[in-house]
Amino acid sequence: MRVFIAGVDGYLGWALAQYLTARGHDVAGVDNYARRQWVDEMGSVSAIPIYSMPDRLAAFREHYGKELLFREGDLLDYQFLRDFLSDFQPDAIVHLGEMPSAPYSMIDQAHSIYTHTNNVNGSLNVLWAMREVCPEAHLVKLGTMGEYGTPNVDIPEGFFEIEYRGRKDRLPFPRQPGSFYHLTKVHDTNNTMFACRIWGLSATDIMQGVVFGTQIDTMGVNPVLRSRLDFDQCFGTAINRFACQAVIGHPLTVYGVGHQKRGFLPMRDSMQCLTIAIENPPKAGEYRVFNQFEECYTVDELAEKVREAGSAVGLDVDIEHFDNPRTEKEEHYYNPDRQHLIDLGYKPTHDVVAEVKIMLQDLLPQRDRIMAKREIVVPDIRWDGTRRRSGVISASPVKS
Amino acid sequence: MRVFIAGVDGYLGWALAQYLTARGHDVAGVDNYARRQWVDEMGSVSAIPIYSMPDRLAAFREHYGKELLFREGDLLDYQFLRDFLSDFQPDAIVHLGEMPSAPYSMIDQAHSIYTHTNNVNGSLNVLWAMREVCPEAHLVKLGTMGEYGTPNVDIPEGFFEIEYRGRKDRLPFPRQPGSFYHLTKVHDTNNTMFACRIWGLSATDIMQGVVFGTQIDTMGVNPVLRSRLDFDQCFGTAINRFACQAVIGHPLTVYGVGHQKRGFLPMRDSMQCLTIAIENPPKAGEYRVFNQFEECYTVDELAEKVREAGSAVGLDVDIEHFDNPRTEKEEHYYNPDRQHLIDLGYKPTHDVVAEVKIMLQDLLPQRDRIMAKREIVVPDIRWDGTRRRSGVISASPVKS
Repeated sequence: MRVFIAGVDGYLGWALAQYLTARGHDVAGVDNYARRQWVDEMGSVSAIPIYSMPDRLAAFREHYGKELLFREGDLLDYQFLRDFLSDFQPDAIVHLGEMPSAPYSMIDQAHSIYTHTNNVNGSLNVLWAMREVCPEAHLVKLGTMGEYGTPNVDIPEGFFEIEYRGRKDRLPFPRQPGSFYHLTKVHDTNNTMFACRIWGLSATDIMQGVVFGTQIDTMGVNPVLRSRLDFDQCFGTAINRFACQAVIGHPLTVYGVGHQKRGFLPMRDSMQCLTIAIENPPKAGEYRVFNQFEECYTVDELAEKVREAGSAVGLDVDIEHFDNPRTEKEEHYYNPDRQHLIDLGYKPTHDVVAEVKIMLQDLLPQRDRIMAKREIVVPDIRWDGTRRRSGVISASPVKS
Repeated sequence: MRVFIAGVDGYLGWALAQYLTARGHDVAGVDNYARRQWVDEMGSVSAIPIYSMPDRLAAFREHYGKELLFREGDLLDYQFLRDFLSDFQPDAIVHLGEMPSAPYSMIDQAHSIYTHTNNVNGSLNVLWAMREVCPEAHLVKLGTMGEYGTPNVDIPEGFFEIEYRGRKDRLPFPRQPGSFYHLTKVHDTNNTMFACRIWGLSATDIMQGVVFGTQIDTMGVNPVLRSRLDFDQCFGTAINRFACQAVIGHPLTVYGVGHQKRGFLPMRDSMQCLTIAIENPPKAGEYRVFNQFEECYTVDELAEKVREAGSAVGLDVDIEHFDNPRTEKEEHYYNPDRQHLIDLGYKPTHDVVAEVKIMLQDLLPQRDRIMAKREIVVPDIRWDGTRRRSGVISASPVKS
């Protein structure tokens, strides 16, 4: 199949281009290198060194014996996007081209506006361009499990059948996102659902859990083929951040009591699931939602798993609880479905500790690189719109 | 109270500034005159002649013996907005500063992006500015009944208690908006709900029905104090458009079978309701939703009421059904609540025919002005992204 990846220079995009190519698909991709700039703005670097796109493309060609058709550009440049899609005529479009950080979107007015413009208008351009030049392509759009928030009922996959005052309907499941970033994902979800309804586009809206991991098998040993791995407060997601903290001997920074429960999945599961979605497209005009995660864990449980993996590789890992810079429920019910992907053949990895061990082994050679950024490891971007560094509230996991 | 109106040059904003001033409130307002440009872009004019803002402000001062504190500017200019709010220190902010047309948002990619940027980013700026300079002000934000779409169950006011798989929660009622414009209103709703939750802002989110009418009592006889009244396919809402068509002897353009049911209210009820919301603010940190309409009618019923009002003033009114340029259900269940405003004292007018008679008398002197724009009365903006003028499908109302 012909697969177009928006955000092909990113953490998931660069890996997915390789995973799909190894499976025999033809891949094209676009990026404006914004992720590199955001992480730079945070005063951080990728823990795993990354290379320029020309270097990446050359290594890609050599390793896979096939070109990755790349153009530098911005999804906000509609003409550019439409022309690229028109030239490439994809069977599937995987949209990973969004600003993916909750804290970054909460920094201030300018960052929340930037996040809205980049994510919502960029996605809207993808929908219009599809309608115009490739209406039969399948959009695989990356949402997030965070769109749902933490309701006191089970979380279905996008829709639910309800009875209300004696009448029944199948309705979109209510979203209660927890940051301006998560809100933009909800806006995209609503826009995509609508575009499918009125224009007959087909889309899979992936409500993905938090991804972690440093590699997938197809990457081999060439360092130029590795994906980035962030550990700053904005672009480093929970387990990735913890693994980098473990490597430099910094206590793991659990926010609040640590009972917040979320869905997580290793990068290799993310690749597997996205590929299942691509290779099993919906019917024409269908809008479907997949919840995509391996399993749900509390942040405490994850910190314990990182500690366990640390011991196995000779690292003594401390865990500390920091006052929570986010406004979120720290005790809540959480029970989301994820049956659709299982039905299509998804086999969850089910071994977080083994995956984290691989990560630690990958990250240990980068200890100095991470250590040099030690001062940015504790968060200071707060949901109340201020900047104040979090302090330790308790030194070991609070058991529930 | 000190009331700040965004969009004070518009159809509702200009009337509300007068209504509130007549009740003794102090009003400030902002506008960038965008509505004047949009209607001009549609090749149309306001059926009721409108005057420049300097003329309006002078007439306002003379009639009400009080200044309207006005500044020209754009909500997208954050510095400007924040400074104005900081200087004025409002008790309430009424946000009417959005692009309000479904068809306009559906014209093409550029118009849908414009609608998103103007509405979503403008509203986001209002939230950030409130947080920064007037966090205790009460935001009265204009949403639309169109956010809910037409579900097969009753429509509550914003939230509902549900039982799902044996557990209970109070959740936001799912939104199923029918155009990119309506989508931006949903995005605003979600952003506002979130800002109240994390920053403790207070807001009333008004899900308003379709407003019609040419005047409110306080305006008196000075033509400079009158509000605009649009009849083009984008900015002319159903009854306003029908009244203008009746005046020039053009058949009323009912879209599709005409069984689409919506909530409607005369401008005087809109003023009454907005004022009730302003004068009865929510608690600090509360986000509440009011459904705001006088009664629900099908488009056919409204066309019949315009015909009836027309006879009373000597106009022979034809009704024709045109192929529907929108993608919407033409047969559906529709039963929204509107109890919150009633509980606070709202007295619905309950006489559409009498209101339309006043409109027709106001519009008859403008017959030539409307007649000159006769060619724009039939819609051509279609939800499928094309432009094609609708044709007649049947010459009299289809009875259900």
